[in-house]
Amino acid sequence: MDHLLLTESAQHTLTLLIVFGLAKLLAELFERARIPGMIGEIIAGILIGPSVMNLVTPTPFLESLAELGVMFLLFRVGLEVKVQELFSVGLTALTVAIGGVLLPFACGWGIMTAFGMPRLQGIFIGAAMVATSVGITAQVLSARRVLWHRSSQTILAAAVIDDVLGLLVLALITGFAKGEVNVKDIAMTTVLTIAFVGLVGYYGTKAIRHLAPVEKKMRLVESEFSIAMVLLFTLSFAAIVVGVAGIVGAFLAGMAFSDSAGQRLRDLTSGATELLLPFFLVGLGLHVELGGLREPGMLAMGGALLVAAILSKLIGCGLGAFGVSFKDRIRIGVGMMPRGEVGMVVAQLGLTMGVLTQPLYGILVAVCVVTTIVAPPLLAYCYRDVAAEGEDQEFPSMR
Amino acid sequence: MDHLLLTESAQHTLTLLIVFGLAKLLAELFERARIPGMIGEIIAGILIGPSVMNLVTPTPFLESLAELGVMFLLFRVGLEVKVQELFSVGLTALTVAIGGVLLPFACGWGIMTAFGMPRLQGIFIGAAMVATSVGITAQVLSARRVLWHRSSQTILAAAVIDDVLGLLVLALITGFAKGEVNVKDIAMTTVLTIAFVGLVGYYGTKAIRHLAPVEKKMRLVESEFSIAMVLLFTLSFAAIVVGVAGIVGAFLAGMAFSDSAGQRLRDLTSGATELLLPFFLVGLGLHVELGGLREPGMLAMGGALLVAAILSKLIGCGLGAFGVSFKDRIRIGVGMMPRGEVGMVVAQLGLTMGVLTQPLYGILVAVCVVTTIVAPPLLAYCYRDVAAEGEDQEFPSMR
Repeated sequence: MDHLLLTESAQHTLTLLIVFGLAKLLAELFERARIPGMIGEIIAGILIGPSVMNLVTPTPFLESLAELGVMFLLFRVGLEVKVQELFSVGLTALTVAIGGVLLPFACGWGIMTAFGMPRLQGIFIGAAMVATSVGITAQVLSARRVLWHRSSQTILAAAVIDDVLGLLVLALITGFAKGEVNVKDIAMTTVLTIAFVGLVGYYGTKAIRHLAPVEKKMRLVESEFSIAMVLLFTLSFAAIVVGVAGIVGAFLAGMAFSDSAGQRLRDLTSGATELLLPFFLVGLGLHVELGGLREPGMLAMGGALLVAAILSKLIGCGLGAFGVSFKDRIRIGVGMMPRGEVGMVVAQLGLTMGVLTQPLYGILVAVCVVTTIVAPPLLAYCYRDVAAEGEDQEFPSMR
Repeated sequence: MDHLLLTESAQHTLTLLIVFGLAKLLAELFERARIPGMIGEIIAGILIGPSVMNLVTPTPFLESLAELGVMFLLFRVGLEVKVQELFSVGLTALTVAIGGVLLPFACGWGIMTAFGMPRLQGIFIGAAMVATSVGITAQVLSARRVLWHRSSQTILAAAVIDDVLGLLVLALITGFAKGEVNVKDIAMTTVLTIAFVGLVGYYGTKAIRHLAPVEKKMRLVESEFSIAMVLLFTLSFAAIVVGVAGIVGAFLAGMAFSDSAGQRLRDLTSGATELLLPFFLVGLGLHVELGGLREPGMLAMGGALLVAAILSKLIGCGLGAFGVSFKDRIRIGVGMMPRGEVGMVVAQLGLTMGVLTQPLYGILVAVCVVTTIVAPPLLAYCYRDVAAEGEDQEFPSMR
């Protein structure tokens, strides 16, 4: 019977069991300690990953589930966000995003220079510090039902803009690393991306409203869900083609349905998300490899980068948040803190381009994960006096 | 920008779009022609597969989604089936399963012998004809809400027994092909399997009922769904370890929850199923390669095998169904007809063991898919006078 254990199907099923089971076990324990459960799920990934138990490695199977998980997470968050509200915070979000690019980049580069590392490495580390992974923040705000709050809307809009800016930074530094910066290409990508996000954001909701009569005529069971999935996959793919992350498209797809989505669509989407999300969260933890920290000087550098990663977004984004209260500046700064998988993608790129060494890559991934773990409890604290949707709200006039 | 199209993430997203989008488009068209939509989804797979458009090939990414899809399908069907009802039809189901093993095996072997093929090939083809894929039938019965009917329960129970018998046949013929039949191993697997199915089937529901107070005390959001998923993955894995298909475990897991599952668990499960099922259905079609039919004699042999595949299950299972009406015999025979992915696994095994040639493998896959496509409209016709659950029922006393 032993040979059966080695079949791919058996391996996949065992992986599903270990990853999902341990994620939920730790989530339950963390919730009991009043820490957001999703941190438990990331830590489950660290525990079963290469640094600790070495039970599970990030296989293509897990990676693809993780990819779907974060796609559905952003789609579900989009479902709860009205596009008009997002556009109404557009200008503040723009300055938040700019502040959240400049300061982290300068800090990352500065620290590397202070440690005497070559310029190209400094620039790459700076770029990785720029990344914002909005998934975790969005999940916390959504679970606490405070997505209605102006500061939440600002974070979401700023994260989308940040993704566009991050793309530019990445295009610039990879061009720089290869010794050729193609200004024409970069300009075209920028225009395309802005046009894509703007057009889909602005016209998406209206287009979906026009689709409602078509959907009513359909014979397919769960036709609304089917249409939503097709739009989700289409916009995710379009986002990648234009040059931004697929999850930006997923978020836009969700937002396009936010006006018209029925309860059934929300329930079915939640089912897919609940199944897949643990694989994304565990996947974040799985990439953490702490071996690099043993090398001399690395611990100090890692510590400096971590502190800089946390403070630079807090201060950079907080300063950029014009015209809001001090409390909201803090909320926005904390919400923009997680680097998550976006920072890890930049680190991966630096590794494959030969700019970053393996220990440096390990440190960068650890920094990304720790910023992602630190944010949810801070967020929960910052939003403790904001009423959940449906209760009496702090600023009811803002709805 | 072109290089971005080649990234794995972009490829996955495009595959999701093509597979899901085309599946739902054809499902809608088929529903309009009053043919079950799932046939449209299988045909979508044939269309985008190697024989026709060659747009998509069965990648590991698609295979893993398909695997999850059929797992959730069987789990969802299990949720609608009460274990007492299944045990009450146990004896009839046993003879149905035995009839559905003997006649198809004899027919497959007989036809191959008539065409002058070697004995080992004949035996393998016979074994592939024995397979029953209950997923499609279960989905049709569930969509028509006639799972309450005694014949439906008999089909489900017989399919589980068939899987155990199929496992024995497979163990025997692979041992035979290798020149060594290990009777002790086969006997142990049989006992283990029967014990597993019996114990989980019998005690599962009670065990879950005892879990309810634990679940109420949990802090985790969607705790019932999390527990259900852990049980689903555990039993699927256990089933593979014992030696039967993972979906038998998935079905048992669903059935264990059928008494206690709340509406929320049903909704979330449906979300995961609706997302993943098209990948299973399209995956069936993707494996069809019709090139082999061009070789001389193959068309005749394929035709004979197809007719035998359809009739042998209809007659074999129908004859085995003691003590039921003629109409129910036909219903049961038709319900057991689809070979689906189970037959394809046997064919795949024959190919990798070098017993089957590539054209013969292609024909066998085509036969499996065609039996799967033919069954749903026939089933819909056979159950046209059975009331859907909730309406006035044909035999209300049987509930």
